[in-house]
Amino acid sequence: MNLLIVNPNITPGVTTLIEAEACRVAHADTHIEMATAASGVAYIETRFEALLGAYAAATIAGERYGRYDALMVAAFGDPGLLELREVLDVPVVGMTEAALMTAGQMGQRIGIIAISRRITAWYRECVDRYGMLGRLAGIRHLDRPLRDPSTVQQDHGARLVELSREAVEQDGADVLILAGAPLAGLARGVAGELSVPVVDGVSSAVCQAETLARLKPIQPTAGSFAKPPAKPRVGLPESGIGRLLAR
Amino acid sequence: MNLLIVNPNITPGVTTLIEAEACRVAHADTHIEMATAASGVAYIETRFEALLGAYAAATIAGERYGRYDALMVAAFGDPGLLELREVLDVPVVGMTEAALMTAGQMGQRIGIIAISRRITAWYRECVDRYGMLGRLAGIRHLDRPLRDPSTVQQDHGARLVELSREAVEQDGADVLILAGAPLAGLARGVAGELSVPVVDGVSSAVCQAETLARLKPIQPTAGSFAKPPAKPRVGLPESGIGRLLAR
Amino acid sequence: MNLLIVNPNITPGVTTLIEAEACRVAHADTHIEMATAASGVAYIETRFEALLGAYAAATIAGERYGRYDALMVAAFGDPGLLELREVLDVPVVGMTEAALMTAGQMGQRIGIIAISRRITAWYRECVDRYGMLGRLAGIRHLDRPLRDPSTVQQDHGARLVELSREAVEQDGADVLILAGAPLAGLARGVAGELSVPVVDGVSSAVCQAETLARLKPIQPTAGSFAKPPAKPRVGLPESGIGRLLAR
Amino acid sequence: MNLLIVNPNITPGVTTLIEAEACRVAHADTHIEMATAASGVAYIETRFEALLGAYAAATIAGERYGRYDALMVAAFGDPGLLELREVLDVPVVGMTEAALMTAGQMGQRIGIIAISRRITAWYRECVDRYGMLGRLAGIRHLDRPLRDPSTVQQDHGARLVELSREAVEQDGADVLILAGAPLAGLARGVAGELSVPVVDGVSSAVCQAETLARLKPIQPTAGSFAKPPAKPRVGLPESGIGRLLAR
Amino acid sequence: MNLLIVNPNITPGVTTLIEAEACRVAHADTHIEMATAASGVAYIETRFEALLGAYAAATIAGERYGRYDALMVAAFGDPGLLELREVLDVPVVGMTEAALMTAGQMGQRIGIIAISRRITAWYRECVDRYGMLGRLAGIRHLDRPLRDPSTVQQDHGARLVELSREAVEQDGADVLILAGAPLAGLARGVAGELSVPVVDGVSSAVCQAETLARLKPIQPTAGSFAKPPAKPRVGLPESGIGRLLAR
Amino acid sequence: MNLLIVNPNITPGVTTLIEAEACRVAHADTHIEMATAASGVAYIETRFEALLGAYAAATIAGERYGRYDALMVAAFGDPGLLELREVLDVPVVGMTEAALMTAGQMGQRIGIIAISRRITAWYRECVDRYGMLGRLAGIRHLDRPLRDPSTVQQDHGARLVELSREAVEQDGADVLILAGAPLAGLARGVAGELSVPVVDGVSSAVCQAETLARLKPIQPTAGSFAKPPAKPRVGLPESGIGRLLAR
Repeated sequence: MNLLIVNPNITPGVTTLIEAEACRVAHADTHIEMATAASGVAYIETRFEALLGAYAAATIAGERYGRYDALMVAAFGDPGLLELREVLDVPVVGMTEAALMTAGQMGQRIGIIAISRRITAWYRECVDRYGMLGRLAGIRHLDRPLRDPSTVQQDHGARLVELSREAVEQDGADVLILAGAPLAGLARGVAGELSVPVVDGVSSAVCQAETLARLKPIQPTAGSFAKPPAKPRVGLPESGIGRLLAR
Repeated sequence: MNLLIVNPNITPGVTTLIEAEACRVAHADTHIEMATAASGVAYIETRFEALLGAYAAATIAGERYGRYDALMVAAFGDPGLLELREVLDVPVVGMTEAALMTAGQMGQRIGIIAISRRITAWYRECVDRYGMLGRLAGIRHLDRPLRDPSTVQQDHGARLVELSREAVEQDGADVLILAGAPLAGLARGVAGELSVPVVDGVSSAVCQAETLARLKPIQPTAGSFAKPPAKPRVGLPESGIGRLLAR
Repeated sequence: MNLLIVNPNITPGVTTLIEAEACRVAHADTHIEMATAASGVAYIETRFEALLGAYAAATIAGERYGRYDALMVAAFGDPGLLELREVLDVPVVGMTEAALMTAGQMGQRIGIIAISRRITAWYRECVDRYGMLGRLAGIRHLDRPLRDPSTVQQDHGARLVELSREAVEQDGADVLILAGAPLAGLARGVAGELSVPVVDGVSSAVCQAETLARLKPIQPTAGSFAKPPAKPRVGLPESGIGRLLAR
Repeated sequence: MNLLIVNPNITPGVTTLIEAEACRVAHADTHIEMATAASGVAYIETRFEALLGAYAAATIAGERYGRYDALMVAAFGDPGLLELREVLDVPVVGMTEAALMTAGQMGQRIGIIAISRRITAWYRECVDRYGMLGRLAGIRHLDRPLRDPSTVQQDHGARLVELSREAVEQDGADVLILAGAPLAGLARGVAGELSVPVVDGVSSAVCQAETLARLKPIQPTAGSFAKPPAKPRVGLPESGIGRLLAR
Repeated sequence: MNLLIVNPNITPGVTTLIEAEACRVAHADTHIEMATAASGVAYIETRFEALLGAYAAATIAGERYGRYDALMVAAFGDPGLLELREVLDVPVVGMTEAALMTAGQMGQRIGIIAISRRITAWYRECVDRYGMLGRLAGIRHLDRPLRDPSTVQQDHGARLVELSREAVEQDGADVLILAGAPLAGLARGVAGELSVPVVDGVSSAVCQAETLARLKPIQPTAGSFAKPPAKPRVGLPESGIGRLLAR
Repeated sequence: MNLLIVNPNITPGVTTLIEAEACRVAHADTHIEMATAASGVAYIETRFEALLGAYAAATIAGERYGRYDALMVAAFGDPGLLELREVLDVPVVGMTEAALMTAGQMGQRIGIIAISRRITAWYRECVDRYGMLGRLAGIRHLDRPLRDPSTVQQDHGARLVELSREAVEQDGADVLILAGAPLAGLARGVAGELSVPVVDGVSSAVCQAETLARLKPIQPTAGSFAKPPAKPRVGLPESGIGRLLAR
C-alpha cells in the first residue's frame, strides 16, 4: 500500500527523521511517501500552532488525494487527525493515538516524555480527547530552549533517558512514549538503558496504519465520521483542501 | 469597547441573526463589528468543517488585529477559540463556553438543543473539552435536513420547543441552551413557552466578553495561554494569520 | 438593580473588604447593599461552619426578601448558594462559582490560592460540586494561623504571591483564583507581579450577577431549581427564612 | 451503646416508621433514642429543605450532646451528615451513605427507588458527594403527589415494586436501595417479590453505626474531619448548636 | 512468529471459529497454534467463569512455555490477559483490548454487540479496566438462550445486525465491535449491511500481536508488569502454571 | 453464624495474624473458621499472584461449601471476591472492599499504607474496580524487601507509622487503611500515634460480614451476581470448585 506521511511542521530535517524510522519498521509492501507542510511553524507546541499544522496537513491531503491508501499525521498531538478521518475514505492514523493504543497493550499506566514544557498542555488535552487520561502516569519534559528540532536527540539524549527513568520510578509508568516527531527513532536507541518498554510514535503509527489497511473497515455513512453533509462552500481550492469535501 | 464578532461560516444571513441578538444585549458603550468567514462552508456541523472555520476566523483575527478590544467566535462548538486565546492579547469568548458558564449559574444540569443530528458529536466533544460533561443532561436535536441555516428558527420553531420540553422532562435539565448561531435570539422568543431558563449563546458571549474586558486580566506570559515561543514560520501572510505570531 | 451581598461570616471587617471591591467593579446603575451574618463564626473554613453560614445567609435573604434584584453569597465555598437558588426568584451568585466560570474563560487549568490548610478540603468539594474538578490545577494555601481575617492581605501578602507563582510553575495553572472573602481585592494589587491572569471572587460575582440580571432568565417551574413543592412547615419565622418557602 | 436517631423532618409519623425498623435490626445492647426536628418541613426533597433539616439536626445534636454514643441522620440525602462528623466526637452515620456502603458489598451497580421526581436531583448529588456516581445504575421514582409521608408505603407499595423491577431489568441494577425515611422497613416486606437484594437505609445505618462504635476509631485531630479551629462565634446557643463548637 | 491462541472456554467449535478468522488475517510468516481450555465452561459470561478461564489459560501458557513468540487470550473480556502479561516475556494480546484499541482508531464512540444479557456486566467492567468507558457508546445484546456457542452466528445473525443498527442510530456509535469469540469472523460477513466500520476481536488481536512482535518492546524489569518478585510457592505444577513464576 | 475466613496466600503465619484480629472484633455468636490456600505464593503483590489466590480461595469455598454462613477473602486486593459473590448463596466480604466502605464513613479522602511498592498498582486497580478512586488520597508503601510476611509489623512498624503521617500531612488523608493481611491488627496498636482514624481490613470485614448476615439480603436471581447460567463444564472437581456451579 501507499502510505502518505505528512509532517505538519515546516522543518525538512524532522521529515527526514520520521522517514528513517518509518522505513525501518514498514512492511516490504508498504510504500512510504513523505510530505512536509508548506506553511506553518518549525515545530508545533501549542493549540494555535496545531491549528496551522492541521490546516497544512489537510491541504496536502487534498492535493495528493487519490494517491495514497492510508495517511499518517506525523506530529505528536495529532493535528487534524480526527478532522481528516471525517473526510478521507482511507485509514488515517496519528502518532499520539497510535502510540497510546500500542503502549496501552504493554502496560496499564503510560508515561510520556516531551521536548518542552510548553508542549505538555497540548499533549495532555490530546490524551484526554482519546479518553485515556486515566491511563496517563504523567508527562515529563525537557526544560531548556531547543536549538533545532532536528537535533534534539543528540542535544538532549541523556536528559531524555533521565526523564524516562523518573517517569518509571516516581510516576509509576509501566510503559513510556517518547513523544514528538523530533524524537522519532530514539526509542530504538535507548531501550537498553530503560527498565520498561518504550514506544515510538512513528513506528506505532506505521504498524497501526498497516493494521487498519489490512482489516479494510468500510467507510462510514453514519456516525460522526461519515463524510460531512453536502452544503455550499467557498474559498477552498478544489485542487487542494476543497477536494476533500467533493463527492 | 470594540467587540469583533466573527461568524466562522460563510452565510451572511447567519451573521445578520448574530448581530441582531448581540445588539439587543450589548451595553451602550460596546461597539459591535461583524465579520463573516471568507472561506469555509454554509454552516458547521463537523470537526473538519470546524477546522475550516477556525482557520477562517484566525485569518480575520489577524487581518483586523489592533482594531478590536475583544473577539467573539460566533459558532457553537467554538472553532478556534482556545487557539486564538493563545495568540491574542485581548479577551476571546465563544458561544459554547460562554453559554455553559452562564447556564451553569442557573442550574446544575444543562440541556442542549441542536439543529442536526450530525452536529451533536462535535458539540459533545466541545462540552467535554471544557470539562463540563458531568453537567450535561443531554443533547437533543432536529432530525430533518436544513433548507437554509438563516431560517431554521422559522422552519423548525415548534419542534425546537418540543425538544426543549423533552430535555426538561426526560433528561432532567435544569436549564437549556439553544445551540448554534442559526438559533441566535430564539431563546428570547420561546422563553415564555418553557419551564426552565433558556440561554442563548450570542447574548451570553457578549455579556461574558464585556465582563472579561471589565476585569482587565493581564495577558499571560506563562502557562498554556502565553503567546507561543518565537520560532521560524513560513507561508503565513503577515497581513493576516501570520500577524498573530509576530512580536 | 439592587444587589444584596451577604457575608455569611460574622466579621464586619471582611464585609468592608467585600464592599470595597464590589463597588470598584460594579456598573453605575448597580446599587450594592451589604449584610453580615447575625450568627456564625469569624471566618468559614469547614463544612459545619459553612452550614452555619448558609443558614445565616438564608435568614438574611428571607428578612430582606423583595428588596433586592440579585443576591450574592460572599464567601468562597458558596455556603447556601444552590439552596437559595431554589427558593429565590432573582439571580443568585456565589464567589467560587462565579470565579470558576470567569477564570474558565481565561485558561484551561485553574489554580486556587487559599488562606488556610483546613479550608482546602471544603473548597475542593465545592469545585467538585460544580463539576470542575478536572479543570483544577491544584489548591495551594497559607499554613500559618490567621491573626484576623480582615488583615490577611497585609499579614501574608508576600507569601500569597509566592504560592501563586508555585501554582503556575509547579501545578501548571493557566489562571489563578485568590480565594476567600478576606482576599477580596488582592488580585487587583498583585496582578503585576504574576505571569498569568488572577481572578477575584467578589468582582467576578458582581459581573456575573449583572450578566444574569441583564439576561433575565425565567424562573424555573420545573427541574431541580423550581421552588420546592408546598408542604407543611414549622419553626421557620415568616419574617425570615420561612418567607422563602411562602407562595 | 446509645444511638440517637434524628429525623430531620418534622413528621412524627415518619419518626415512628424509622424507629420501628431500627428496633427490628438493632443489637440487644443498642439503646435507641429518637428525635424529630423542631423546625423544618414535612419531608425533605430539595437542597434548601435539606439545609433546614441539617440545621435542625445540628440543633438536636447540640442539645443532647453527651447523651449518645453514636448519631444517625435519618433522612435519605444525609442532611448535615458530613457537617456533624466534623464536630462530634462519636460516630455519625447517614441513611444514604450507609445504604450505599452496604449495598456496594452486595452488587456492583446500585439502583435507587425514590418517592418523588423532585427528590432525585438531590439524591444524585448526594451519591456524587460520596464518589459513588459510577456505581449508580439509576434512580427511579414515584410520580404522583404524596398524600402523607407516613403512608407512602401503603399508598404506593405496588408501584414501588414495579419501579424496583424496572431498575433491575432496564437499568441493570444488581442491588436496590428503597430510599427515603418514609420507606423505612419496606425492603423487608417486598424482598420476596424482587430478584435482587434490597437495602433499607435505616437498618443499614443502624448496623454501620454499631460497626463504627465497635471499631472505636480515634477522633481526628488532623484532616478535614478534625474539629474546626477555635475562633470567635456569635448567635449560636451554647445549650444547642453552639455547644458543638465548644472545646 | 509462532502465535499461540488460547480459547479459555472448553468448546472446540469455538476454537475452530477463532482459528478460521485468525488464519484469514494473519501474515504469511505468522504460524498459528490453537489451544482449548482443559477445564472450565462452555462459554464465559461472568466474572467467576472468567476466573476459571483465566486459570485454564495460564495453565496452557505454562505448559507450552517457550514454544510461542506471542500469546492471544481468545475470549472477549480477556480472562487472564493482564495477569499473563506480568509473567510472560513475549507479547500477550486480548480480544477486547485489541478490538478497543483498533476500533478507537476508526471512531470516537464505540458500540459493542454481545451474545447475552448476562455477559454485558463483565464486558463493561473489562472496558472500564482499560480506562475506555468514556469511549463506550453502549453495549447491546441478544436476549434469547443460546443453543450452542458455535452456532450463534447462524442462529442469530439477523438479530445481531439489527442490534448493530440500533447501536449506531440510538447510541451514537461511530464504530462497532461484534464481541465474543463465538462471533469470530462475523464482522467480515455483515460489514456490507452496516453503515459504520465493524471490528472483530480475533482479527484485531492477531494484527496487534504481530505489531507488538514487530516492535520488539523490551521486557519490563520495573513497573507493574515486571515479573513478580521471587518468593516461596506451593501447589503449582512446574510443568504448567508454576513455570510462569520460575526464573 | 459460621464465618469462613480464607487466606488466599500459603503462609500460615499470616493466617494466624488474621485469626487473632478477627477474634478480637467478632461478636460472641460468630464462630470463626480459618483456611489457608493449598496452592499459590507466600504473599500476593501482583495481578497474576492474585489470580492464583482467587483460584485457591474458590477451591476452598467449594470444598467447604455448606459449612459456612458467610465467607471472607482475607487478602487486601480481594482476590476472587466478586467472582465468589456470583456463585455463593451466602454473604462474601473482602478486606479492601470492607475497609473502604468502613473508612468511607469516617472521612472523605482515604489513604492506604502498603507493604511494598510492587503491590500498589494492584491495590489501585482494586480501589478503582469499586469506583472509589475519587476518594483515594494516595497509596504510600514500604520500599524494602520483606523478610517474612508474618513479621512485617515488627520489622517495619516505625516506618509504617511514618508513612501514615505522610499520608495525612502530604496527601490530605482524612482516614487511613493499613493494607494487607500481614498488617492485620496493627491499626489497633498504632492508633494512638496517629492523628486520624485508622482502619484495619480484617476487623472491617468481620463487622461487614456480620452486618450482611444480619440484614439477610435475598440471593439474586437477576443482575450480574445471580448464579451463572447452567452450561456444560469439565475439569472442575465436584468436591471442590465445581460444586460452586452446581444447582
